[in-house]
Amino acid sequence: MILKEENAKKNITVGIDIGGTKTLIGFVDPDGNILLEESIKTEHKDSAELYVKYVSEKINSFYEEKLNGYTIAGIGLAVPCGNRFTGYVENPSNFNWGNVDFIGLMKKYIDQPIILLNDAKAAAVGEHHYGKAKGMQNFIVITIGTGLGSGIVLNGELFYGQNSLAGELGHVSVNPNGRKCTCGKSGCLETYVSSNGLRRTALELMSHYLAPSELRYYNFDQIDSKKIFELAEKGDSLAIQVFDETSKILARGLSDAAINFDPEAFILCGGVVNSGDFLIQGLKKYFEENLLSMYRNRIQILKSDMLDGRAAVRGAAYLANKEFVCANNYKMAVS
Amino acid sequence: MILKEENAKKNITVGIDIGGTKTLIGFVDPDGNILLEESIKTEHKDSAELYVKYVSEKINSFYEEKLNGYTIAGIGLAVPCGNRFTGYVENPSNFNWGNVDFIGLMKKYIDQPIILLNDAKAAAVGEHHYGKAKGMQNFIVITIGTGLGSGIVLNGELFYGQNSLAGELGHVSVNPNGRKCTCGKSGCLETYVSSNGLRRTALELMSHYLAPSELRYYNFDQIDSKKIFELAEKGDSLAIQVFDETSKILARGLSDAAINFDPEAFILCGGVVNSGDFLIQGLKKYFEENLLSMYRNRIQILKSDMLDGRAAVRGAAYLANKEFVCANNYKMAVS
Repeated sequence: MILKEENAKKNITVGIDIGGTKTLIGFVDPDGNILLEESIKTEHKDSAELYVKYVSEKINSFYEEKLNGYTIAGIGLAVPCGNRFTGYVENPSNFNWGNVDFIGLMKKYIDQPIILLNDAKAAAVGEHHYGKAKGMQNFIVITIGTGLGSGIVLNGELFYGQNSLAGELGHVSVNPNGRKCTCGKSGCLETYVSSNGLRRTALELMSHYLAPSELRYYNFDQIDSKKIFELAEKGDSLAIQVFDETSKILARGLSDAAINFDPEAFILCGGVVNSGDFLIQGLKKYFEENLLSMYRNRIQILKSDMLDGRAAVRGAAYLANKEFVCANNYKMAVS
Repeated sequence: MILKEENAKKNITVGIDIGGTKTLIGFVDPDGNILLEESIKTEHKDSAELYVKYVSEKINSFYEEKLNGYTIAGIGLAVPCGNRFTGYVENPSNFNWGNVDFIGLMKKYIDQPIILLNDAKAAAVGEHHYGKAKGMQNFIVITIGTGLGSGIVLNGELFYGQNSLAGELGHVSVNPNGRKCTCGKSGCLETYVSSNGLRRTALELMSHYLAPSELRYYNFDQIDSKKIFELAEKGDSLAIQVFDETSKILARGLSDAAINFDPEAFILCGGVVNSGDFLIQGLKKYFEENLLSMYRNRIQILKSDMLDGRAAVRGAAYLANKEFVCANNYKMAVS
């Protein structure tokens, strides 16, 4: 009996957030504390097989070097276009991986139970248990980086929909004749509200107005959200206007999401949100104006206080723990 | 014991669907069969108090005349802007009732337990238990009449949101610079997809094109969805185009709802849907085109097979039965 309890104490799960630039690997205890965290470059964006081999070797080596006193009870993967019901990653736009049985691939290298889900859904679980959404029943996490993703918790539970595809809010239409999107449609929210969306808005404003701006010194690739933020901070009026226009469009998108889901809060996270407060300040201003009157003054706009990727790592690890540790303990208890 | 069973058999609930033109009252047995149905004109649209008195008297007299052998165990009201959590009706746009404690008012006239909810939500419950959505876990009912409403079932349960306000899909934006809406916003879905939306589209097309059309013989008030349908049936090209444009916009609205909720089906009902198949045929054509690829060929578009108002009546009666009969039986069984 004592032996069993000691084993249980030492169980940990691994949460992995796979981003377009970096992959964050966290070894997480059952209380959600990250015991060890390693950030590695996301290699092999052209081959899921090579990527999986690469990340599996990293997990095994970190574990053997530093965490030998613990037992890994399971792994939770947070990955763009990850499908919780099938274990597949389905044609993520920033990776050339196609539609791939990701869990199947990983099982070749790691002899552990694995779950996989969309990265924004994992972040919603992380915010629910360890972040700004603690105690909430209905909320939506919006991650704004290369694209725009969302994770939705309804009646206290992560919402998947019929095929684990609910909440691709980056692709709701905000302008039927709007910008071309990587998905093939036009006017998707993320063509405006994302790091690339900010860049496109900067170019559009430079084309439309005559105002001088330091933005005019840089080429397409040099204008990223960080650069626009730096210039806005220095008072560049065009850079400030980029954030203003972006927050107007985000306010429209979130007011439609409010009509759909009637949430108590939106929680914003991701690289673009973390590069200063222009976006979130503008959003707070325009959001209430856009809301249908019955929803006004009822929905909070909050900024995540977790570092980029940590909510997803902790959320994925939480779900792995729930699935592979708690469920087993329950089975043992009732048998 | 026998006495108790006989009483239970004779329990019925009343489902009431309050529409802008007529009010449908149904006396419903626990299996969802409508024992008696009466349609009355919706009077007193300027006074909730007078309306409640009027409808309560009708319920009492129908019951006393024709259903004296049964016991009314509860009443379920399906009403625009009805809030399940508060019992209030909150500023419905087709009634001059303001924000009113509707259940409180009704208790003055009827000594029965009462629940109240939005009419489209009640219709979703009706479709779930007795209609096209039997056995489904995730679906959305879209009612198209004077306005556009929706009721959403997720993971097998009616979804309310944080304040019973989820799913006001008539007010999602389909065009940021679009038509003025009664809600104060611009470009709401129901300014295009509703009986009044069809009329506005007819006028817009007449203003834009030179094509001859019988629609040009009628004034604003005479052009209703029935008239447009009649002319479309006769081959009037402009009337046909009205339905075509309307179904394009509805397809856009539902493809965004699909992104939000990942449902297995949309079920359409209401006066505009019942006036012929032009709208639903157009919708089926444009819906798949508008969908993000990952959702394609996964979501059904269905037309309700219940007569107008019956799904809401049966849904509201079902919920009243669940709340006031089943819950009591359970309490009796465990005590």
